[in-house]
Amino acid sequence: MIVYLKTNTSTTQIAEMQLHLKQAGFESYLVQQPNICMVPALKDPSIIERFPFISGFKLISTAYQLSSNEYKNETLFEVNGVQVGSNFANIIAGPCSVESEEQIFETAAFLHKNNIKFIRGGAYKPRTSPYSFRGLGKEGLKLLQEAAKQYKLNVVTELMDLSLLDEVMAYSDVIQIGSRNMANFYMLSELGKINKPILLKRGMQAKVNEWLLAADYIMSSGNEKIILCERGIRSFDPMSRNVMDVAVIPLIQSLSHLPIIADPSHGTGDSKLVPIMAKASMVAGANGLMIEIHPNPSEALSDAKQALNFTDFETLLSDLEVLKPAIKKPIDASYSVFI
Amino acid sequence: MIVYLKTNTSTTQIAEMQLHLKQAGFESYLVQQPNICMVPALKDPSIIERFPFISGFKLISTAYQLSSNEYKNETLFEVNGVQVGSNFANIIAGPCSVESEEQIFETAAFLHKNNIKFIRGGAYKPRTSPYSFRGLGKEGLKLLQEAAKQYKLNVVTELMDLSLLDEVMAYSDVIQIGSRNMANFYMLSELGKINKPILLKRGMQAKVNEWLLAADYIMSSGNEKIILCERGIRSFDPMSRNVMDVAVIPLIQSLSHLPIIADPSHGTGDSKLVPIMAKASMVAGANGLMIEIHPNPSEALSDAKQALNFTDFETLLSDLEVLKPAIKKPIDASYSVFI
Amino acid sequence: MIVYLKTNTSTTQIAEMQLHLKQAGFESYLVQQPNICMVPALKDPSIIERFPFISGFKLISTAYQLSSNEYKNETLFEVNGVQVGSNFANIIAGPCSVESEEQIFETAAFLHKNNIKFIRGGAYKPRTSPYSFRGLGKEGLKLLQEAAKQYKLNVVTELMDLSLLDEVMAYSDVIQIGSRNMANFYMLSELGKINKPILLKRGMQAKVNEWLLAADYIMSSGNEKIILCERGIRSFDPMSRNVMDVAVIPLIQSLSHLPIIADPSHGTGDSKLVPIMAKASMVAGANGLMIEIHPNPSEALSDAKQALNFTDFETLLSDLEVLKPAIKKPIDASYSVFI
Amino acid sequence: MIVYLKTNTSTTQIAEMQLHLKQAGFESYLVQQPNICMVPALKDPSIIERFPFISGFKLISTAYQLSSNEYKNETLFEVNGVQVGSNFANIIAGPCSVESEEQIFETAAFLHKNNIKFIRGGAYKPRTSPYSFRGLGKEGLKLLQEAAKQYKLNVVTELMDLSLLDEVMAYSDVIQIGSRNMANFYMLSELGKINKPILLKRGMQAKVNEWLLAADYIMSSGNEKIILCERGIRSFDPMSRNVMDVAVIPLIQSLSHLPIIADPSHGTGDSKLVPIMAKASMVAGANGLMIEIHPNPSEALSDAKQALNFTDFETLLSDLEVLKPAIKKPIDASYSVFI
Repeated sequence: MIVYLKTNTSTTQIAEMQLHLKQAGFESYLVQQPNICMVPALKDPSIIERFPFISGFKLISTAYQLSSNEYKNETLFEVNGVQVGSNFANIIAGPCSVESEEQIFETAAFLHKNNIKFIRGGAYKPRTSPYSFRGLGKEGLKLLQEAAKQYKLNVVTELMDLSLLDEVMAYSDVIQIGSRNMANFYMLSELGKINKPILLKRGMQAKVNEWLLAADYIMSSGNEKIILCERGIRSFDPMSRNVMDVAVIPLIQSLSHLPIIADPSHGTGDSKLVPIMAKASMVAGANGLMIEIHPNPSEALSDAKQALNFTDFETLLSDLEVLKPAIKKPIDASYSVFI
Repeated sequence: MIVYLKTNTSTTQIAEMQLHLKQAGFESYLVQQPNICMVPALKDPSIIERFPFISGFKLISTAYQLSSNEYKNETLFEVNGVQVGSNFANIIAGPCSVESEEQIFETAAFLHKNNIKFIRGGAYKPRTSPYSFRGLGKEGLKLLQEAAKQYKLNVVTELMDLSLLDEVMAYSDVIQIGSRNMANFYMLSELGKINKPILLKRGMQAKVNEWLLAADYIMSSGNEKIILCERGIRSFDPMSRNVMDVAVIPLIQSLSHLPIIADPSHGTGDSKLVPIMAKASMVAGANGLMIEIHPNPSEALSDAKQALNFTDFETLLSDLEVLKPAIKKPIDASYSVFI
Repeated sequence: MIVYLKTNTSTTQIAEMQLHLKQAGFESYLVQQPNICMVPALKDPSIIERFPFISGFKLISTAYQLSSNEYKNETLFEVNGVQVGSNFANIIAGPCSVESEEQIFETAAFLHKNNIKFIRGGAYKPRTSPYSFRGLGKEGLKLLQEAAKQYKLNVVTELMDLSLLDEVMAYSDVIQIGSRNMANFYMLSELGKINKPILLKRGMQAKVNEWLLAADYIMSSGNEKIILCERGIRSFDPMSRNVMDVAVIPLIQSLSHLPIIADPSHGTGDSKLVPIMAKASMVAGANGLMIEIHPNPSEALSDAKQALNFTDFETLLSDLEVLKPAIKKPIDASYSVFI
Repeated sequence: MIVYLKTNTSTTQIAEMQLHLKQAGFESYLVQQPNICMVPALKDPSIIERFPFISGFKLISTAYQLSSNEYKNETLFEVNGVQVGSNFANIIAGPCSVESEEQIFETAAFLHKNNIKFIRGGAYKPRTSPYSFRGLGKEGLKLLQEAAKQYKLNVVTELMDLSLLDEVMAYSDVIQIGSRNMANFYMLSELGKINKPILLKRGMQAKVNEWLLAADYIMSSGNEKIILCERGIRSFDPMSRNVMDVAVIPLIQSLSHLPIIADPSHGTGDSKLVPIMAKASMVAGANGLMIEIHPNPSEALSDAKQALNFTDFETLLSDLEVLKPAIKKPIDASYSVFI
């Protein structure tokens, strides 16, 4: 149950209510301090309605609470002046791994030329084998940030472990949580305490309920800037790296206010299929795309098979132009347009 | 290996070559009599190259042979004057089950009004429970054919068992093989002996290789008029009836010359998602759609949750108009255009 | 709902009741004529309780009705004097395919020597590729029956298509329905009309509910002699042919009165793992085993990797002796013991 | 490739060789300092064979290297005097979560009475929902350790995040890595640097290759004390929490020297099935069991459905006695027996 508090409620009053709830056996979460308090297990408001500073109640019917569209209609925030949210779309592109200064600056320049606002790049890479290239580490983060600054891009990069949080905070604008960490609940709770948008990829075996509950971990700790990202699920046919669950995009949108983007690079694992699935995802209503590109895919140190070269990425962008009447959402809209 | 025969090769000559192959341990298949003979296990042509009526050889690199695009570039055939094939698209719509004369005539009239050329409808229904409505049987087939005749539609209906083949042949224009029969190999071989297009749905757990080998069962028995249909695969999240594998559409098209259509009704099991996934599939390159519609979905005797009402289906059709620049294939093109 | 009828109820009386039910919108099934009639959708007996020949009602709480252990406690039948049922166990062994007279007679002699009562062997083989060995057909069935007769074995063989039913009936004692046909509902209904035990393998992605409903298809048409067989389900790791769901054995036994045996040959696809999983399955409570054996596995024309040689099969049998205190069920008990 | 070094090789010599390898493009790992160095990508020894302190080479044929049985035949270590390894078995039991002093001391006393040597219990719980009981935290760890000390038990508890490593190190004897962290590669590398056994659960959709590579992450960082644990994989039937992959036990044992135990509590999610699957796993060769027990399962704060009560656990122990001739491995053998 969502408990709405009057605007002038004091910290002491809230603490008193929370103590009362705890004694009655209910955990509570201050979500949008000081206006909203959530008490997930509470079904009957009579237990607290006597507190005079409560202005209203709303019961949410699903296990996930804060990510539900019963909690709010819309998510909207901005990243350095670019609109992100359930009625907008954004394109994020860049290499799987930051490999060299040349590679990342060339990529950043290319993105800038094409009016892209977000660059992705991994510095600490989750690799199935310990004997594969694991990224340049902090050096990679620095290069990524420098290139982004020069070309006015926002940085999206993955946080592999909480012990790297300060480092990743310092060098990024959006923090990506990879598929393997979607159910790393301890990490998710900690991410609720920071003020930076979180790109939360779907676990490779995550049910929709589990994914939204993962978002609730972040939200119930205080951070409501979340972007979901479908990146393919594991299935039975070894011919494909993953099966991209395109239908989960409109399904999530019917359940949640959170924006959801598509990552057809991991979703298919095959650069031949990436542009096609990017377009299909946008037509299915995705709030954007995350695409792996590389100046020279065949020489990429990781995920070489799924990276687009620059030409193919530009073709995709112009194909998306053709689809604009069907997409209906502004892509990478800048904040100023709306003020 | 495909063995090409000169055009004037006699039946006796072919029989002699096949006997020679058999004695050497090789099964052979007359595919497009009398021009083409396939010998799947043959890698080395020296064993038969002495036959003077052989004009050439082609080794095919995959386990599936005749469905491979190494065998041919394109499939093209017509169904009562409507073009079907790898460069065309078709829309098939209709109820899950034929339920009554009124229902099927109303649906047929509606399809005719919207220039649709194919009507679907089940008369013998594969139901998980023996205690569910199993269809009207022969009576349903008759109603379906009458409605189709009156409104100039082609009939697509499912063959559940070979013992019903004569009946289904008599009342249909395209024979649908459902997901549960995709690996019914005995049936597939028999379908290779008839001269009617086969709509071959993907098994709910079928790998791409297995699906194309199922097509090879039909083709190696002589019938090359096949339409593949993606209808969702089984996965781990009970929230969705199936996971629609949209990426299999371009993947199949990169491997095979066979047309592949999408069935978002079974693919999602949810009428809210059907139009969205129909559009996404068409943008992903599908050679058409199979959509369940019903005059009054809430009263449908089977699959009520996934049927579109007429209004939503018309909205989908007009949305597809907007997408035409991205679709690039003529939809339900009539034969006369090409002569 | 199960409706129990008094023993002297006439055919006319039953027909009258069924007509009354039909007019009220309820399908009914005569299960054990003339004693039991099932009306799956009926929840409220008041609609028919006025018929004086009704002796009682039982509501069954699951979608599957006749395979539920709410319908009966136990299944017990005999195959040529050998006990089969929920409190017994049986071992079925033999080659994947009947390949030659020598192979099948050698195998039969070996089984006889080891007191095995059931021989398996395929004559019509469901092969993923049309270009693989598909079995000897009727010739194979004849050889199998001759070998079985000479060595006092019961024949278990697969029915691939209803058009082969008469042939398979003539040459077998137990009819096997393979994984690919578990959801071939038309075939299942027809198998309910014959008087021969059915070995019903689990579909490779069949849920427990679906499997038991498939058994209900057979039972509601009149045949209650069913043996279920777990043979592995499809999963995501290409390292294994299938994942053997051992826990489904006790799970089914907690839901159903039907006996369930294990097929570790298909369950693992690996002859190294077969004996281990055979033992684990028996300790998990299986009502028997189906094992592929071959005089010379490396030369088998199908499933060579998973067939045991004779020595390894004898080792398995003596290992099972050690496990007898844990198995607790008589194996291949002959009928005379119990009269 | 494994590079064996003569016993008197100096640190300087090794450093020189590693530098040479790095310049040639090869990463190397000192595994058992100073005897063994691994160079995963090296196939041709000529590049370093000139170093006189190299005594031999061994090429390992799989992607996973150190967990392969080509690297070593056997794993053997002890935990406070109890033998653990590929030829031994151990039983770990205890509650899902430490809930109270009373609960954990009662459980510990019970285990002690039954000669069990390892107690499990969660203090930081990975829960799908943020609104479920997440464990007592550090307080729980303390209670667990106190109870274990009093009753001479070893503590097995889960590490949810690296930031809790020091705490968990201080209170446990074996560190459990849960299913959701199996692919948390950064954490795995750090665990290679500690001197405490790691119980590495299989990810819920982890392929065998991926699981062994996860073990390689730990081993290549220096820690070879690893116990694998099968705990069920995710599949398509919502009737079961997981599908327990019993066959993976002998499969892993044919590939790796690492011991592998079974967790039928998570593997089935159903206390009715737990003892049956525990026995089946032991007969399949498992190196032990991890079982959830609770003094009063119906009141458990987490995983109530899968916990055994004390009576059922004792029945399981006596059933295992019956199976001893088939199990063949000493269970919880104490170190003194072997010296």
